[in-house]
Formats: sequence, structure tokens, C-alpha cells
Amino acid sequence: MSATATGWLLTAVAETSSEGSTDHASERLANEPVQPIAPYQSEHPEKVELGKKLFFEPRLSRSGFISCNSCHNLSRGGTDNLPTSIGHNWQEGPINSPTVLNAGLHMAQFWDGRAATLQEQAAGPIDNPMEMAYTHTLAIEVLRSIPAYVDMFEAVYATRDIGIDHVTDAIAEFEETLVTPNSRFDQWLRGDDSAITADELAGYETFKSIGCVACHYGEALGGKDFHRMGLVHEYLTENPSQGRFEATGEERDRFSFKVPSLRNVERTYPYFHDGAVWTLAEATEIMAYLQLGRELPQADIDNMVAFMRTLTGEQPQITLPQLPPSTENTPQPVPFERE
Amino acid sequence: MSATATGWLLTAVAETSSEGSTDHASERLANEPVQPIAPYQSEHPEKVELGKKLFFEPRLSRSGFISCNSCHNLSRGGTDNLPTSIGHNWQEGPINSPTVLNAGLHMAQFWDGRAATLQEQAAGPIDNPMEMAYTHTLAIEVLRSIPAYVDMFEAVYATRDIGIDHVTDAIAEFEETLVTPNSRFDQWLRGDDSAITADELAGYETFKSIGCVACHYGEALGGKDFHRMGLVHEYLTENPSQGRFEATGEERDRFSFKVPSLRNVERTYPYFHDGAVWTLAEATEIMAYLQLGRELPQADIDNMVAFMRTLTGEQPQITLPQLPPSTENTPQPVPFERE
Ligand code: HEC
Ligand code: HEC
Ligand code: HEC
Ligand code: HEC
Ligand SMILES: [Ca+2]
Ligand SMILES: [Ca+2]
Repeated sequence: MSATATGWLLTAVAETSSEGSTDHASERLANEPVQPIAPYQSEHPEKVELGKKLFFEPRLSRSGFISCNSCHNLSRGGTDNLPTSIGHNWQEGPINSPTVLNAGLHMAQFWDGRAATLQEQAAGPIDNPMEMAYTHTLAIEVLRSIPAYVDMFEAVYATRDIGIDHVTDAIAEFEETLVTPNSRFDQWLRGDDSAITADELAGYETFKSIGCVACHYGEALGGKDFHRMGLVHEYLTENPSQGRFEATGEERDRFSFKVPSLRNVERTYPYFHDGAVWTLAEATEIMAYLQLGRELPQADIDNMVAFMRTLTGEQPQITLPQLPPSTENTPQPVPFERE
Repeated sequence: MSATATGWLLTAVAETSSEGSTDHASERLANEPVQPIAPYQSEHPEKVELGKKLFFEPRLSRSGFISCNSCHNLSRGGTDNLPTSIGHNWQEGPINSPTVLNAGLHMAQFWDGRAATLQEQAAGPIDNPMEMAYTHTLAIEVLRSIPAYVDMFEAVYATRDIGIDHVTDAIAEFEETLVTPNSRFDQWLRGDDSAITADELAGYETFKSIGCVACHYGEALGGKDFHRMGLVHEYLTENPSQGRFEATGEERDRFSFKVPSLRNVERTYPYFHDGAVWTLAEATEIMAYLQLGRELPQADIDNMVAFMRTLTGEQPQITLPQLPPSTENTPQPVPFERE
């Protein structure tokens, strides 16, 4: 637990009354360990539009079938809602696909934090043989072969010489816009007492008082630290991931994962890095027992689940991009491998 | 060739001057064998919205990964731009995926016309083991388990007892809206002489004078008849499809296919039922030789291709639907088959 988190936790427990409401929005905002999500206004709308096209672009994959949106479906809270993902050639992915919504608020990307930024992350899937199974060289060749794309890159980056850094920069800028402001909970944070019910508020109080908030805090209610999965009791899973240990090689990082954001968590099932748990109630029960050593009464679980459902914000309104057609110079997709 | 088509062809050849333009829009509209696409204004916007959700709904598939939009990608002219489709478990499909754009204008659905209507067609993919690999019973169970869906169906069909006919009716109504009006060619048809260039017009003249229009006529430039692929010379393909023969069992229908629409044809590559041909120029050369026994000069081919590119209309503006989350009663997806 980071010093800041502990500080917030103590403040929260000390200063929030059992009713948890205050007439003064500014007081609430200052005292709560969770902050409302700010809307993101990009200064580069053309870059965002290009990034959106690339996010939906199956031609960045070997098969011509898989795009970022295949596994981070923006109709479904930015995930595929599968335990682990389906990749190129229907390969079974190693780990649960986290949402791209609000990912820009995380201190690092991936469950093990091995990418520092969204841009660094975006270079991963295209040439990952388990995911899009392409090469950066071929992906760039595809884009360069399509005049409409070359024009768009030129308008944004003032060069017709498209490189992978342009591609990942544009995708990252699009992802920055994928925030979900104005959830009912954020309305409450901003002072609207009627935005959440008494049960939901009680759930939030429990969430704070028993210590969930020590890890799930800040704008995203997560994304700020790595923590061991199974702090008090061990988590049993068939998933072989060693978590952050795989990125650092440090023994203390074994089985430590980036704390996931709880924003829109009712949409990001199944839960945990192995995607083994399908309901929020079960995930809550497991968290309380494994991370905090507590067995909670059903009423507390119900209220905490009700609270977490208030974290669903406005989903990004996406107009489906129109992708420019290939030309005779475009490398052809390889949907099926021939001997 | 139907009587009507022949009539149009003769009229066209007789009455269109080599400049092919007339000051009077109504005269042009009356005389040309192609009609502009009318915008579609649904009287059931709620049904369209529901149908859109279902079109984008991967939970209608066994894996929870494949939706109608996977193979009829509305970012890409309503197709997957693959020779044959990738289905459940990465199975290789038997035939090229036609666009859903303007499909409502066809006299029947599928290459062999085996479905009379869009609604009848829509029942096919969900339980096709090569495509979505689900069952209608399970698909309905998924929808019934999600209160937000039950409410939407009730609002449209006045019953909470969702059936497969409601599902296919809503999808069909959404598909009816997927028309692409206002192409440059349609602007020309409506009397705007400057909407297409002299080369494009020359291409259209050739298209009519050599006889393409005998099969590719009407609002969709196709979709109105079945014809043998390889009328004058045989078409060589490794694809085993026997075309309409498979629907009727009649010998004269062997290797006969529904004439595809040429609307948005620059976006629906690769071409023909086997998806073997990637460029419009090659498809044109093949058509001229196989269907009409002609070997065309390159300039004619270029102009005809230029003409066909004027058939790209306004693509439907789709706001990505937000799909309601599953509940604990929702049948879980089966992305990977376990022994
Ligand atoms: C085949 C499935 C698949 C595809 C395609 C895919 N992803 Fe992912 N994505 C995943 C999985 C699984 C993870 C988690 C991997 C890990 O943590 O080791 C992930 C992680 C991420 C993350 C980190 C989120 C977080 O909270 O740590 C971001 C951001 C992301 N992907 C964006 C993208 C972008 C952009 C593309 C396209 C260029 C893309 N993904 C393509 C499955 C996929
Ligand atoms: C000591 C840190 C810590 C504490 C305390 C903690 N969590 Fe977590 N939480 C995590 C980590 C780490 C994960 C990811 C574990 C994994 O996927 O293996 C997680 C995952 C979750 C998830 C699943 C999110 C997803 O999208 O997969 C939920 C829900 C959740 N926590 C809720 C809670 C609740 C409710 C509490 C209190 C009862 C709580 N957490 C306490 C660290 C913590
Ligand atoms: C796995 C790929 C795949 C999926 C998923 C899929 N389709 Fe298709 N679709 C095809 C193929 C291939 C054909 C042509 C089959 C044939 O003609 O025999 C086709 C044909 C059609 C046609 C007929 C078009 C024409 O011009 O004849 C329509 C309409 C259609 N599909 C709509 C849908 C709808 C609606 C869904 C979802 C309920 C869907 N498709 C799911 C691949 C797919
Ligand atoms: C006798 C009928 C007939 C004539 C004449 C004809 N076509 Fe076709 N056309 C078809 C049929 C049938 C197909 C589908 C064949 C298949 O896919 O196997 C087709 C397919 C096409 C396609 C591919 C469309 C797609 O989406 O796959 C193009 C392009 C095309 N025709 C253009 C032309 C041009 C240009 C001419 C004149 C040079 C022409 N056609 C003459 C019947 C005809
Ligand atoms: Ca998840
Ligand atoms: Ca095609």
C-alpha cells in the first residue's frame, strides 16, 4: 500500500460520517479517496479520428480480421467479456483482456505494468503472434499503400513517411479520449446527494471502512499500484501468469498485478487476471477474503456490488469509422495458413 | 436475361447520346437502366435500434466473439474483405461474404437465393456451425436473461416472450436502413452533369453498350436475376459451389449465381463467389470475356472501373451500440472447445 493510499484511507475513515453526505461539494471532493473522472478534450481531433480508424483496423492483423476493437469491444465496455481472448487463428490467450476505457489514467499498462504508456503498449498487439500476428513492417506497408491513409498521416504528422511511432501515437491519443465521466457516483462526489441510493452509499462506506479503498482509489479506483493477488489467503488458479515478476524478475513481485480500475466494472466481467469469476458478488467475496481476510455478511456484499454499479459512467459515443479501401499495392491478408 | 432487363438495355443503347447527358433530370431518370437509390426512412426507429444492437451482438454466437458485423463489417462496406470468411473456431468459410449494404433491394438473399427475405436470411448464420455455431434456443436464452433486452423487445413487440422471429425481424429492419444513397453516379442520374467526369461517363456508356447492364441494372445494378457464371467461356475455380443448383436442384441452375450489386463495389473486394479476384480491373476483364465473349482495350476497362467507383454512396453513419451487460442467468460463452 502506498503512503498516499494509506493517507486517503485514514482520512476517509476519519472524516466521512455514517451518512457520508455533505452539503458542500468541494468538501466532499477534497476528502474522499475517489475523484470524479474529468472529461477528456483532445487538442488534436484529427489525430483522434486517425487513431480511431487504426483502433478499428483489421488490416493491422495478419488475417485481416482482428482489430484492437475485437478484444476491446467499445460496444461492451472496452473488453471481450471472455475469460481469455481469442487471437489469430483462434489461439487461446494467456490472460484476461482489460478494458481500454480510462486506461490513460493508469500509471502503467498491462497486468504486469510492462508498458509505461499507452503508446508503448499499442506497439505490442500488432506483432504479438498470439494476438494480431502481424509485423510492424507489413502493417506500415498496408497503411502506406492506401492513399487516404497517407493523406491522413500527413495532415497529422506533416510527413508521408508513415512509421510505427505515428501509428501508436495516434492510437494512444484516441485511447486518451475513452474516459467515462459523469457516473452516478461522480455526480454524488460532486455534491448531488440524490445521485446514489442509501444502499449504494452504505456499500461505499463499507468499501472504505474495511479497506478496499487502500488499493482501489483515485480517479480510476485502481491503476495506481501493483499488489499481490492473495495477500492474506492464497489465490488458486490454473493460470500460469506470475504477474509483475515477469516484468521485473524481483521475487517480491511474484503474483503481483496492477490493481484494476473499478470504473464500469459491471461491464468488464469476467473478473481477475484469469477471468475465472463471472459475478461482481463473487469477486467481492473473494477480494474481501483474500486481500483483507474478511468474511462479509451478504448484505454488505450486496451493498458493495450496488455501489460498484454506480461507477458505470457515460460510455464513449463512437461513430463507426469508415476505413479506406485497399489498393492493388496493399499486402493481402492471410486468413488461413496453407501448408 | 429478364424481359425487363432487355428492354432497358435496348432503350439505353437507343436513347442515350454519346455524351450521355441531358438537361432534364426526369428524362434521364426515365430512360436510364439504372435508378438512384432512395434513402430509407424507417417507421420503426426503436426496432432499428434494437436490430442494430443484435447485428453487433457477439452473444448470439457460441464463442461470444462473432457477430453479424464480424463478417459484414460496416466500417468496410458491409463485408470482411476476405476471399471466404473466418467463422467459429477459425473455420474457413465456403464462399465469399456479400455486403449487407443495399441487400434489401435484392429479389432474394444468398448467392443461390435460398432465402426469400432478409428476415429469413437472418435466421441462418446464428445456428450455422461454420459461422456463429450457436442454437436459436441458446441465443434466445441469452437475450431473455438480460433485462434491458427484454424491455427493448417488449417496447417493440409488446411481449416479454422473445422469440427468434422477433430477433430476425429486428435485424432485417436494421438492414433495410443500410442503403447508400447519393453516390456521384446517382447525382448524375438526377441531372447533375458535373457529378461525374468524361472518363467515368464514357465507362458507363461502354458498360451499357457492350451489355454489362443486361445483368447489372436497376437500383442496385444487380440483385434482380440469377445468371450462369461463365456464360460464354467457362469460369475456372477451386470453389465447389454449384450456385443456385444447390437451392433448386434444377440442372439449368448449375453454376448460376445471384448477380451481385455493383453499388460500393470498390469496397467489396475480393470479387466473385470464390473471392478469387482482388481488383476491379481484373474483375471487369473477366466479366467481359466470360459473360460477353469480349476482350476489351485497356482504356475501356479503365473507364468502366472509373465508372464503377462512382457507385460508392454515402455509407450508413452508425453510432456504435452499447450492449447491455450479461447477468448471472446468461449462458456463458464457449470460446474454446475442451475435450
Ligand atoms: C487478441 C486479443 C487482443 C487484441 C487484438 C488487442 N488486445 Fe489489448 N490486450 C489484450 C490482453 C489479453 C491484454 C492484457 C495483456 C497483459 O496484461 O499481459 C491487453 C492489454 C491492453 C491494454 C492495457 C490495459 C491495462 O489496463 O493494462 C491496452 C491499453 C490495450 N490492450 C490496447 C490495445 C490496442 C490499442 C490494440 C490494437 C493495436 C489491442 N489492445 C489489441 C488483448 C488484445
Ligand atoms: C491489497 C490490495 C487490494 C485490496 C485491499 C482489494 N483489492 Fe480488489 N484487486 C486488487 C488486485 C491486485 C486485483 C487484480 C487481481 C487479479 O486480477 O489477479 C483486484 C481485483 C478486483 C476486482 C476485479 C476487477 C477486474 O476487472 O477484474 C474487483 C471487483 C475488486 N478487486 C474489488 C475489490 C473489493 C470490493 C475489495 C474490498 C473487499 C478489494 N477489491 C480489495 C487489489 C486489491
Ligand atoms: C462467419 C461469417 C458470417 C457471419 C457471422 C454472418 N455472415 Fe452473413 N454471410 C456470410 C457469407 C459467407 C454469406 C454468403 C453465403 C451464401 O451466399 O451462401 C452471407 C450472406 C449474408 C446475406 C445475403 C447477402 C446477399 O447479397 O445475398 C445477408 C443479408 C447476411 N449475410 C446478413 C447476416 C446477418 C444479419 C448476420 C448475423 C445474424 C450474418 N450475416 C452473419 C458470412 C457471415
Ligand atoms: C450474363 C450476366 C452478366 C453479365 C453480362 C455481366 N455480369 Fe458481372 N456478374 C454476373 C454474375 C452472375 C456475377 C457473380 C459471379 C460470381 O460471383 O461467380 C457477376 C459479378 C460481377 C462483378 C463482381 C462483383 C462482386 O462483388 O463480386 C463485377 C465487378 C461485375 N460483375 C462487373 C461486370 C461488368 C463490368 C460487366 C460487363 C463487362 C459484367 N459484369 C457483365 C453477371 C453478369
Ligand atoms: Ca475482465
Ligand atoms: Ca466480395
